[in-house]
Amino acid sequence: MKNYVLTPGPVPVPEFVMLEMAKPIIHHRTEEFEEIFFKATQGLKKVFMTKEEVLILASSGTGAMDAAISNTLSKGDKTLVINGGKFGERWLKICKAYGVDTVEIKVEWGKAVDPSQIEDILKKDKDIKAVLIQASETSTGVEHPIKEIAKLTKDRDDIILIVDGITAVGAFPVEFDKWGVDILIGGSQKAFMMPPGLAFIVLSQKAWEFNKKSNLPKFYLDLSQAHKNSLKKTSPWTPAVTLIVGLNAVLGYFDKIGLDRLYEKHSILSQATTEGFEAIGLENFAKGCTSTALSVIKSPEGIDAGLIVKGLKKKYGMIVAGGQDQAKGKIFRITHMGYVDKADIIAVVAGVEGILSELGHKFTSGAGVSRTTKILDRL
Amino acid sequence: MKNYVLTPGPVPVPEFVMLEMAKPIIHHRTEEFEEIFFKATQGLKKVFMTKEEVLILASSGTGAMDAAISNTLSKGDKTLVINGGKFGERWLKICKAYGVDTVEIKVEWGKAVDPSQIEDILKKDKDIKAVLIQASETSTGVEHPIKEIAKLTKDRDDIILIVDGITAVGAFPVEFDKWGVDILIGGSQKAFMMPPGLAFIVLSQKAWEFNKKSNLPKFYLDLSQAHKNSLKKTSPWTPAVTLIVGLNAVLGYFDKIGLDRLYEKHSILSQATTEGFEAIGLENFAKGCTSTALSVIKSPEGIDAGLIVKGLKKKYGMIVAGGQDQAKGKIFRITHMGYVDKADIIAVVAGVEGILSELGHKFTSGAGVSRTTKILDRL
Repeated sequence: MKNYVLTPGPVPVPEFVMLEMAKPIIHHRTEEFEEIFFKATQGLKKVFMTKEEVLILASSGTGAMDAAISNTLSKGDKTLVINGGKFGERWLKICKAYGVDTVEIKVEWGKAVDPSQIEDILKKDKDIKAVLIQASETSTGVEHPIKEIAKLTKDRDDIILIVDGITAVGAFPVEFDKWGVDILIGGSQKAFMMPPGLAFIVLSQKAWEFNKKSNLPKFYLDLSQAHKNSLKKTSPWTPAVTLIVGLNAVLGYFDKIGLDRLYEKHSILSQATTEGFEAIGLENFAKGCTSTALSVIKSPEGIDAGLIVKGLKKKYGMIVAGGQDQAKGKIFRITHMGYVDKADIIAVVAGVEGILSELGHKFTSGAGVSRTTKILDRL
Repeated sequence: MKNYVLTPGPVPVPEFVMLEMAKPIIHHRTEEFEEIFFKATQGLKKVFMTKEEVLILASSGTGAMDAAISNTLSKGDKTLVINGGKFGERWLKICKAYGVDTVEIKVEWGKAVDPSQIEDILKKDKDIKAVLIQASETSTGVEHPIKEIAKLTKDRDDIILIVDGITAVGAFPVEFDKWGVDILIGGSQKAFMMPPGLAFIVLSQKAWEFNKKSNLPKFYLDLSQAHKNSLKKTSPWTPAVTLIVGLNAVLGYFDKIGLDRLYEKHSILSQATTEGFEAIGLENFAKGCTSTALSVIKSPEGIDAGLIVKGLKKKYGMIVAGGQDQAKGKIFRITHMGYVDKADIIAVVAGVEGILSELGHKFTSGAGVSRTTKILDRL
C-alpha cells in the first residue's frame, strides 16, 4: 500500500528536493559549494526574519538546543523554563546536564503560557539569565506567545530569550529582529520540508555578548566557530553537503511562492483540520492557542487514540503521530508543514471518519470531510 | 565539463545509494525505520570488527571526536596526543576546549609515530588517562601503527586508546575487539561512500567504565543516551533518516562484495597511484607508512602543488585536494575510498602528467599511466 507520511517531523519532502540531493556530490572546500552555502544562509535570514547570520549545524534540532545553552550560559546560572510539553522538558534536561539552575513554569499540556506569570517571576527574581521556551510545542500543538514574552526581555541587558522554533520557523512568522528574540532555532525536517540532519540557529547581538561570558565547554557545537566560518561562506567541520544543497532548493521554492503564501497555507490547512474534526465531535487539544504548524486532535472519550493511529496506518497507509508520555492514547498529531496539501488533509479527516465509525464513535458520516473541504476552498 | 570528485572526503557516492536516499521519507518512530536502524548497526559491527554496539550520530566526524573526549574524561585529566597532522591538532583543540591537559608527541608531517616513543612516555607518566591518535591522518596520508600502540594500553585498566578512524574504518581493517582499541570513530563521507552527516563511534567495556566517571557536561553528544536507545533500535534525538537509509544500502553492498575485497581494492588503487607517480618522479608524502585510504603525493621541487590542483580542475574537471597549513602548495591528495575505480585512478595520473608537462616538469610522458595501468591489472 502507498504510504502517506503526515507526521509533524519528519514531514514529506518534495520530489524536486530529493532529486536535487541525489545529484553527484560536490566537495565542500570549493567555490561552487561556498556559493551554495552562502545562498542558503541568505535565504535562511529571510525565514528567520533577521539581519544576523543564521548558522547551519550538522545535527538534529536538539544539537542546536544544546548549543543555545552551552554557548551562552555558565555553570550555576539560573534560567526560567516554560515547560508545557516534551520539548519544554528537554530544556530542563539540557540545563541539568550543564549544571545550569532552573526555575520552572509548569504549563498544563495543551495550554499556552500566560506571559504575566513570566513577568511576575522576572520581577521577583533578578538573577534569571535566560527564558527558555518553544514557539510551537510539537507534543501538544500549542503556540506560545513569543511576541509578548519578548517584550519582557528585550530591553534588559542581563537576560536573553531563547526560543526553540524547530516546529515554528517557516511554519508561521517568528519576527526575530523586530520582536527582540535573542536565540531562535529551526530544524530541516519541519517547515523546511527536508530530511532531518540540519539544525539552524541565530543569535542576537545581546546573545553574542552572553557568549563571550559563557564558560561552559563546547567544541563541535561551538557557535563562535560556526559564526566565524559562516561569514567566510563555510562551516568549521565537514558540512552535511547534500542536505545543504537540498535546503538551497527549498529556499528557492520559498522565494518563488512567497513566505506569506506559505504561512497562509499552513493556517488554512490548520483551520480546515480543526473544524473538520470538530464537526465530528473531536476537539483540538490546543484550543485557543493552536499552532498552525500541526494539528493535535483529542480522541473521543473512551477511544484510545492509539487505535486511530494504528487504524490509519493499517487501513489507509497514513502515518500520523500519537501522543507522548502523559498524552499517550489521548491525542493524534498531523503535520501542516512540509510537502502536504489539500488532498492529504481531506484524506486524513476522511480516514479518521472511517476508523471512528468502526470504533463505534457516533457522528454524522461525512460531516468532517464536508467541513474541511469547504474551508480548503479558501486556499 | 563533467566533474570527477576525487577528494578524500566527501568521496563520490554510488548512484544506487543516492537514489535509495531519494525515496519518500519514512518516520523514525516506526517499526519500519527501527528495522533499518538495527540492520545498519549490525552492519557497522562487521566493519568496526566488534561485538560492541556501534553508535550512529547525526553529526560530522568531529562531533564523534568531541564525544569521545567529553564522554570519557574529566576536567584536569591528562591525555597523550599523537599530533602528526591537521586532525592530530584537532585532538589538542578538543582537549583544550574541555580543560583536559595534554602531553604531545609532535610527529613530522608525512611520518608515522614510533610506538616506542609512546611506550617511554606511558612508562614515565602514569597519570595519562588516554592516548589520542588517528588511524589514518587525512592531511598527510599516513597510517599510524594502531595495532602496536594498542598493545601498550589494552592490559591497563587506567588508560584508554581513542582512535579517530574517520579515514580508516572501511578503508582497511582496524581490529577493534582483537587489538583492544577502546574508542573507534568513523564518518559517512569516507570509506562508507555516503554524503557527510553521520558519524559512528564504538566504545569498549573499559571505555564505558571511563564514561561512568567522566564529569564533563554533554547532552546532544551524550553517548550513554545514544547507547541506551541504540539497543532499542533507535536514537535519542531525531536521526538523519535518509542518510541512515543510504548507509543501510552501502552496508548491504559491502556484504555483497566482501570487506576483504574492498580492502584489497583500496590497497591496489593505492599502490597503483604511488608507483604511477613515482614513475614520473613524484614522491609519496607518506613513504613507508602510507594509508591505503588515500594517496598524498608531493609536488616536484619548484612546482606549487596548488597549480596541479587548479590545473586538474580547469583542464579535466578533476577535483583533488591540496595540502593544508604547512603542507599547502607541497602536496595533493587523492581518495581511494568511495565510488572510485580503476578508470578514475588512470585518469588522474594521466591528468597530472598533462598538467606537469605544461609546468615544465621533466619526465617520460606516459610512464606514470603505464605503471599505474600495469598494477591495476591485479584488481
